[in-house]
Amino acid sequence: MSVYVVGHKIPDSDSICGAIALAYLKNQIGEASIAARLGELSPETAFILEKFGFEAPEFKTSYAGEQVYIVDHSELTQAPDDIGEATIVGIVDHHKLGDLTTSTPLECWIRPVGCSNTIIKMMYDFHGVEIPANIAGIMMCAILSDTVIFKSPTCTTADIKCVEALAEIAGIEDFKALGMEMFKVKSAVEGTPVRDLVMRDFKDFNMNGHLVGIGQLEVIDLSVFDDIKAELEADLVAMKAEGGRHSMLLLLTDIMKEGSELLIVSDDATLTERAYGKPSENGRVWLDGVLSRKKQVVPPLQEALA
Amino acid sequence: MSVYVVGHKIPDSDSICGAIALAYLKNQIGEASIAARLGELSPETAFILEKFGFEAPEFKTSYAGEQVYIVDHSELTQAPDDIGEATIVGIVDHHKLGDLTTSTPLECWIRPVGCSNTIIKMMYDFHGVEIPANIAGIMMCAILSDTVIFKSPTCTTADIKCVEALAEIAGIEDFKALGMEMFKVKSAVEGTPVRDLVMRDFKDFNMNGHLVGIGQLEVIDLSVFDDIKAELEADLVAMKAEGGRHSMLLLLTDIMKEGSELLIVSDDATLTERAYGKPSENGRVWLDGVLSRKKQVVPPLQEALA
Repeated sequence: MSVYVVGHKIPDSDSICGAIALAYLKNQIGEASIAARLGELSPETAFILEKFGFEAPEFKTSYAGEQVYIVDHSELTQAPDDIGEATIVGIVDHHKLGDLTTSTPLECWIRPVGCSNTIIKMMYDFHGVEIPANIAGIMMCAILSDTVIFKSPTCTTADIKCVEALAEIAGIEDFKALGMEMFKVKSAVEGTPVRDLVMRDFKDFNMNGHLVGIGQLEVIDLSVFDDIKAELEADLVAMKAEGGRHSMLLLLTDIMKEGSELLIVSDDATLTERAYGKPSENGRVWLDGVLSRKKQVVPPLQEALA
Repeated sequence: MSVYVVGHKIPDSDSICGAIALAYLKNQIGEASIAARLGELSPETAFILEKFGFEAPEFKTSYAGEQVYIVDHSELTQAPDDIGEATIVGIVDHHKLGDLTTSTPLECWIRPVGCSNTIIKMMYDFHGVEIPANIAGIMMCAILSDTVIFKSPTCTTADIKCVEALAEIAGIEDFKALGMEMFKVKSAVEGTPVRDLVMRDFKDFNMNGHLVGIGQLEVIDLSVFDDIKAELEADLVAMKAEGGRHSMLLLLTDIMKEGSELLIVSDDATLTERAYGKPSENGRVWLDGVLSRKKQVVPPLQEALA
């Protein structure tokens, strides 16, 4: 029986590239595996897969009775809806430890680094399996995406060394230029429905019983949002109501200015003040230096809602 | 600030030896660490530490405000009572994934092998740190204990290779003889209060809202229990009531006959029938081939209580 290797809902490049890279590794060491995904590819991920010649992993939402290897999270809310009926055989992740549990022993490769693909590279090294050039390419792009080309505070020296090693395997001379090309693809928001933008990189978190949805859009210049910010905010209100959420947040991240404008709709009007020491005005607040949802946005929010 | 490396409540040899071995490794790579313990040493563990010249780790039960590296479990019920006020920086474990969660990224080295110390050996290899002979000795003994000298179904080829490598480092020619010596120490129950015996290797599990306590005594010959079995059973009844538990189980494991007599007191009279396909008679049932609480006792019980 094959193991399905699958990332989180609303997959990002780390989830998709990680599933492909890990499924290849597992097949090489004799564990039959299939890369899968829980949702549509983002434009960035589609760009990466096309560049290195990969098809999208199998779209599959139900895993009852299957064996599953989880990539890039350990949270029930981000897992397949019927994960409770599946057997989790492994987790590779770089986030806080979530609420997934199992009834049998498993392997967990969890490290406080910038990207799951950095850990998957460690797994290749551990098993002594050579990384094909095209797989090195997508792994490298996933790390450049998650670490915002090394600018994110989540980026570690392990991530940088890993990108350098993968670039050599992939035969990419200027990986930073490729990273910028990737973020330009990511910055193209014109003509995309607002709901698709809010959902592009979106995660729900269970914070002490409060459901909090947090989206993030990373772009090269925040001016791309000037004409649609009101529409985005109206959609946050709608999504908060539809999901019965306590709060809906959208981070508009300027990777060149290295900060984020946070749009927020919440049952708790003082939330940004308590979490980030800055009150929101009309549901907006600029957070200087904030690039990372995982490291800079989620933990203080979790504290504030504890 | 130092990180406390600590195993589970009612520590076994894996918890104690693992804490010492991991704290040493972390100190070698520049992360100041202190081995700690949540309870008394078992006679087996005391024998191991004395043999290789170690003191018991620091006895410490409160960790509020501290950084903690967890060894040999990922369960709230087995962690320090105030773990919620500590920061978990890492977990090394070989059990099912439990209900510990964190609010910040961490490292988890979790593998489906027979012993946490086998994984700690992988961590030494990953960091390229040499294992001192006396630390190799206690790690080796912990693996021999957890795998019942390779007889347990939890034992993997990784555990066997690891023991062989550690025996060479420790300069132990006949590690199986040392293992038997260790189990003879473990088999000495005469003169020990029954409560101490039930608690010697005891874990509480939260199974779908039901609190289930499971103790295990591994001996060379079950006849050592002939005169005290009724007292042990009376104490199971007492512990079930005291802890408000759904069930109390005690595994009397015969490592030579390779099976366990299960003593059980439960709110559910059909539990062993549903979990193991064999009804208990007067709260007793022989489970042939059952040596492992983790692999053979807990998962079917969890299924039966799902």
